[in-house]
Amino acid sequence: MNTVQQHREELVRFSRQLHQAGFVAATDGNLSVRLDNDRVLSTPTAMSKGSLCADDIVTVDMEGQLISGRHNVTSEIAMHLMIYKLRPDVHGIVHAHPVTATGFAAAGLALNQPLVSEVVMGLGSIPLAKYGTPGTPELCKSLEPLVRNHDAILMANHGAVAYAETLEGAYMNMEMIEHVAKIALVTHLLGRQQPLGDEEVRKLLLARARYKSLRNTEPLTFVPIPTNGH
Amino acid sequence: MNTVQQHREELVRFSRQLHQAGFVAATDGNLSVRLDNDRVLSTPTAMSKGSLCADDIVTVDMEGQLISGRHNVTSEIAMHLMIYKLRPDVHGIVHAHPVTATGFAAAGLALNQPLVSEVVMGLGSIPLAKYGTPGTPELCKSLEPLVRNHDAILMANHGAVAYAETLEGAYMNMEMIEHVAKIALVTHLLGRQQPLGDEEVRKLLLARARYKSLRNTEPLTFVPIPTNGH
Amino acid sequence: MNTVQQHREELVRFSRQLHQAGFVAATDGNLSVRLDNDRVLSTPTAMSKGSLCADDIVTVDMEGQLISGRHNVTSEIAMHLMIYKLRPDVHGIVHAHPVTATGFAAAGLALNQPLVSEVVMGLGSIPLAKYGTPGTPELCKSLEPLVRNHDAILMANHGAVAYAETLEGAYMNMEMIEHVAKIALVTHLLGRQQPLGDEEVRKLLLARARYKSLRNTEPLTFVPIPTNGH
Amino acid sequence: MNTVQQHREELVRFSRQLHQAGFVAATDGNLSVRLDNDRVLSTPTAMSKGSLCADDIVTVDMEGQLISGRHNVTSEIAMHLMIYKLRPDVHGIVHAHPVTATGFAAAGLALNQPLVSEVVMGLGSIPLAKYGTPGTPELCKSLEPLVRNHDAILMANHGAVAYAETLEGAYMNMEMIEHVAKIALVTHLLGRQQPLGDEEVRKLLLARARYKSLRNTEPLTFVPIPTNGH
Repeated sequence: MNTVQQHREELVRFSRQLHQAGFVAATDGNLSVRLDNDRVLSTPTAMSKGSLCADDIVTVDMEGQLISGRHNVTSEIAMHLMIYKLRPDVHGIVHAHPVTATGFAAAGLALNQPLVSEVVMGLGSIPLAKYGTPGTPELCKSLEPLVRNHDAILMANHGAVAYAETLEGAYMNMEMIEHVAKIALVTHLLGRQQPLGDEEVRKLLLARARYKSLRNTEPLTFVPIPTNGH
Repeated sequence: MNTVQQHREELVRFSRQLHQAGFVAATDGNLSVRLDNDRVLSTPTAMSKGSLCADDIVTVDMEGQLISGRHNVTSEIAMHLMIYKLRPDVHGIVHAHPVTATGFAAAGLALNQPLVSEVVMGLGSIPLAKYGTPGTPELCKSLEPLVRNHDAILMANHGAVAYAETLEGAYMNMEMIEHVAKIALVTHLLGRQQPLGDEEVRKLLLARARYKSLRNTEPLTFVPIPTNGH
Repeated sequence: MNTVQQHREELVRFSRQLHQAGFVAATDGNLSVRLDNDRVLSTPTAMSKGSLCADDIVTVDMEGQLISGRHNVTSEIAMHLMIYKLRPDVHGIVHAHPVTATGFAAAGLALNQPLVSEVVMGLGSIPLAKYGTPGTPELCKSLEPLVRNHDAILMANHGAVAYAETLEGAYMNMEMIEHVAKIALVTHLLGRQQPLGDEEVRKLLLARARYKSLRNTEPLTFVPIPTNGH
Repeated sequence: MNTVQQHREELVRFSRQLHQAGFVAATDGNLSVRLDNDRVLSTPTAMSKGSLCADDIVTVDMEGQLISGRHNVTSEIAMHLMIYKLRPDVHGIVHAHPVTATGFAAAGLALNQPLVSEVVMGLGSIPLAKYGTPGTPELCKSLEPLVRNHDAILMANHGAVAYAETLEGAYMNMEMIEHVAKIALVTHLLGRQQPLGDEEVRKLLLARARYKSLRNTEPLTFVPIPTNGH
């Protein structure tokens, strides 16, 4: 089991990776780790994810109040805390603005076509949450109905959020969001898509249920979400 | 507060980052830092931003005359000096040619649709300055009316310029230009855009005014600019 | 000749390169090396290719049973073993999901237009194998008819597989798949393609036959594959 | 002035940069430096540009015969020697297959629209040479009429070649080819282009003539090339 210091370093490592991968620009994005029932480690507000160090990480309580740290708390902490409350299995969250997935989110489109088998098994469909002004309760309200049944969500006119049992898992889910968004975009550009049929999807969801049950007690569904973002 | 040597190293660091990110090719682009009322540090002319070292940085006065340095001054220094004169709050400037944003600029299009909340809060709209031959007073004249109310500007058939209180802030604004250009391009490719409504934009601009007032005394507006580049 | 430890390190090196190039997301992809008639080294299941180390590599027999290693065997090992059995000349295999090539595979399109001379000489045409659920005999069955005459194959709604005499060669073939997919996509976007004529292709295939005979005893053909993925 | 060993290391450095930038896949591409009237250093055939070391570089005479080196000479050496013969000012050549530029070349399109001022000043127009089978005299014949008046040429169904007084300059010209190809592609995708007018181009070509006369005695013109590749 990791120490608090190891979790800080892990947050820095994935923050840098997030910036290097082009998943955030400027001071965009935030990452967090749940330490225990009362405390969450989080990246601070208004700093580039590409140049953080372990001392920049802040500790907050479950109401989002600063416990320790030399920087301010991000206004998006409420979204992280809401997810931790609804999903006891989740211990790491990554919020970012990867360009292709954010393009889908700004076009009012979910990533809910079964184009690639590994994504159906890994994430099911990726729904689109309605727009809510960042840093307001509106944003949490738009995500809330989707959190229980999904590990990765697009946020209209904003970006994406992904989470998992570990921060590494959350980062990998974010990678998968952008990966499948790029693949879906290529099929759009080619003007031609051959999504998997119902029978093939059913087989993959069975495999997914077996695999996910090992580490995730939440049921997960592959229900296409209507693509109206507003 | 940074020493002159630290500012030189900072210019080298962001020059390399600019090249690595693909925001410039060949000897494109230039970066500067205002040291005080009389002196500006700048990258030299005709060198790749990917292989500069601190000794390559030149010092110029507010007329663009070389004070010290072993290389020639870039002919684009006049643009930097004009911005420093109009914007007392600005101490760092980045000029580059990021491909997607420059594609918009060569298509005669501004980045003035409110597609992503963070960009509305961070930069407002990104206008398109008319074309002016590089290294001539024409270029400054085309930018001048836009400098006061914007921190990031597209330059028709040329590239983009971004600035801020610090060089790091200017670099982050340049990152955001290309980031939102890529997102906007994805929505174009998907043939579908759901920009934020007037009410949502109004809320974001209120948040922006609060946030920006901490460090920027200039008013900033979100007025769509007509998209005729010439 | 390489030792087993050198092969492990080679697998780690190309796994990291695969992740860094964006050819895989999350825990996608797997790589293997045939050591001798009875043993294959392989990347393990459910780990990011970006953070493997040499101790993570597992050894399996030709039935896919774990001989040694601290992780589980990937369910895609059957595909690797099938290729090694059909192609005695092959000693390295790379399976990945590069976004552009996978976009073609999800659109039901092979990469079988002679657009670039070096690709015709290097790989001939790149066919599209029908969809088969990952980790099932279905998947092997869909690839089997294509393995003898091709060194690189798209897999519908899944990704791509490439192989060669060495792991480095297999990695280079995977690079070439994505490279030509990107070039083909650009021509689609430009709405215009000027493929090579029959006479030019014939000359390149003659050059290919001469060159390949040095290291590959299998005949290779440039037969366009029908583009129905299912 | 550089020693032979320094030139070998320079070739390795730009070879790696070429691979890292995605300008080549597999064993694609070759780079050379003219040492004097009788000798040229060149990357060898059939090796990845991403993993060369200085000892891999070969030395050839002006007929392309190996003088020293432990690897074989690339079959594309004839193209390099032809350029050195026609252009006494050139001492470095880079041949590569950057995906966007190669997409234009496979679509039968030159990069001859004046979209970006810096490219007009730096390279003028970038013509498209007709297709010639690699490694044959046909290839040289197709390039020959364009070499005198251009520093960067697209090669139909193949890739691009760039050259300059130094290898660094040649690499920067290759960067600029792909940079402008990406910008031109974005304008295509936006369905809208605002190229510079004749008067603006004339001003830039005057500036170019002044600037180029410092280091290049060849006249350079901006004549659009018909876009028929074959």
